[in-house]
Amino acid sequence: MVNSTLADILPKVKSSSPEPRRRGRRTGESGTRDAILAAARERFGAVGYGAARVRDIAADAGVDPALVHYFFGTKDALFTAALELPYNPAEVLASALPGDPEGFGERLATALVEAWSRPGASSALAALLRAAAAHEPTGTATREFVETVMIPTLAGAAAPDEPDLRAAQAASQIIGFMFTRFVFEVAPASTVPLEEVAPRLGALLRHTLRG
Amino acid sequence: MVNSTLADILPKVKSSSPEPRRRGRRTGESGTRDAILAAARERFGAVGYGAARVRDIAADAGVDPALVHYFFGTKDALFTAALELPYNPAEVLASALPGDPEGFGERLATALVEAWSRPGASSALAALLRAAAAHEPTGTATREFVETVMIPTLAGAAAPDEPDLRAAQAASQIIGFMFTRFVFEVAPASTVPLEEVAPRLGALLRHTLRG
Repeated sequence: MVNSTLADILPKVKSSSPEPRRRGRRTGESGTRDAILAAARERFGAVGYGAARVRDIAADAGVDPALVHYFFGTKDALFTAALELPYNPAEVLASALPGDPEGFGERLATALVEAWSRPGASSALAALLRAAAAHEPTGTATREFVETVMIPTLAGAAAPDEPDLRAAQAASQIIGFMFTRFVFEVAPASTVPLEEVAPRLGALLRHTLRG
Repeated sequence: MVNSTLADILPKVKSSSPEPRRRGRRTGESGTRDAILAAARERFGAVGYGAARVRDIAADAGVDPALVHYFFGTKDALFTAALELPYNPAEVLASALPGDPEGFGERLATALVEAWSRPGASSALAALLRAAAAHEPTGTATREFVETVMIPTLAGAAAPDEPDLRAAQAASQIIGFMFTRFVFEVAPASTVPLEEVAPRLGALLRHTLRG
């Protein structure tokens, strides 16, 4: 039920998860992968990102947990594949961390814009955000991802006074931009070329996190 | 169809529209008001805020356009009543305009927090935002409201260099905050007392509009 609702809403965009390495039996490999994805959508949808355990997803799919890691690597990557985004948001966030904290906002904005520019990204994002807003389980999974991955990562680059509040405000800015550009398509937020977005969003994130 | 979907999604919150003045016939007054609201929801949902004309809504409801103005005042107020928010967003935006432009961000944040603190406001906002994200016609109406009312009002208080982009960014911040607090309920955005939100949001809006 939950699964079919999610599957109905989410677009069929190529997953960013790597191709399975060519080892072991070939027969049924894509069937196994699809069974894991279906179980992951069901469980992420039902109990949220935090409470969904890889070993439970594996059990639901009738496979060994090692196969989940074989196909998808980490739980983050499985979450991403289940929601069909053509990039891994946790990796995009983490990619901006190395380097001078003062430049984190600009690096993050550049990385976000690069991710949003990938083929299929804008429609996948719009579908995910719509599902997150309208569909309680997807919203719960999204909230938990923001709370347990996004805000802690942002807080790691924030100034030491109230880093969590700064991070929450920065997360809210990113989410607000995604809704105005990809869901509501409000001009001029939706009409400015993405490459012009990076310096503006970067300056704003820097001010929020470090100013 | 559109109407029933909207009516299913939106909460039954007391409208902010004034009580009808006690003149003219009493009998059927609430029936007439409800018929106008139903026609307004249908038409705002079907064609959006901008294209919906008061005289068409009146015709749909089988009443004279003067009756729409009698019950609801302006088209803005009718839109608000149709979406059941316990405040008029256009009025909240406009209320912050008088005074020093440098202080607009803080005045707007204070006015928004006052509006969000009204009984039923948070659930009504969540329902409206969910509907706007998931339900194409409501999303269209919301986008048009943001483009034709919200951003122009914000731009009126922005610094003269790129006021529209500043206004779009400020609108995106307000929308992002509403989604993180009222829809996704992301901590700490959702747990900070609203009265502590005003100075932070105000400073951010000032920076975005004037910095």
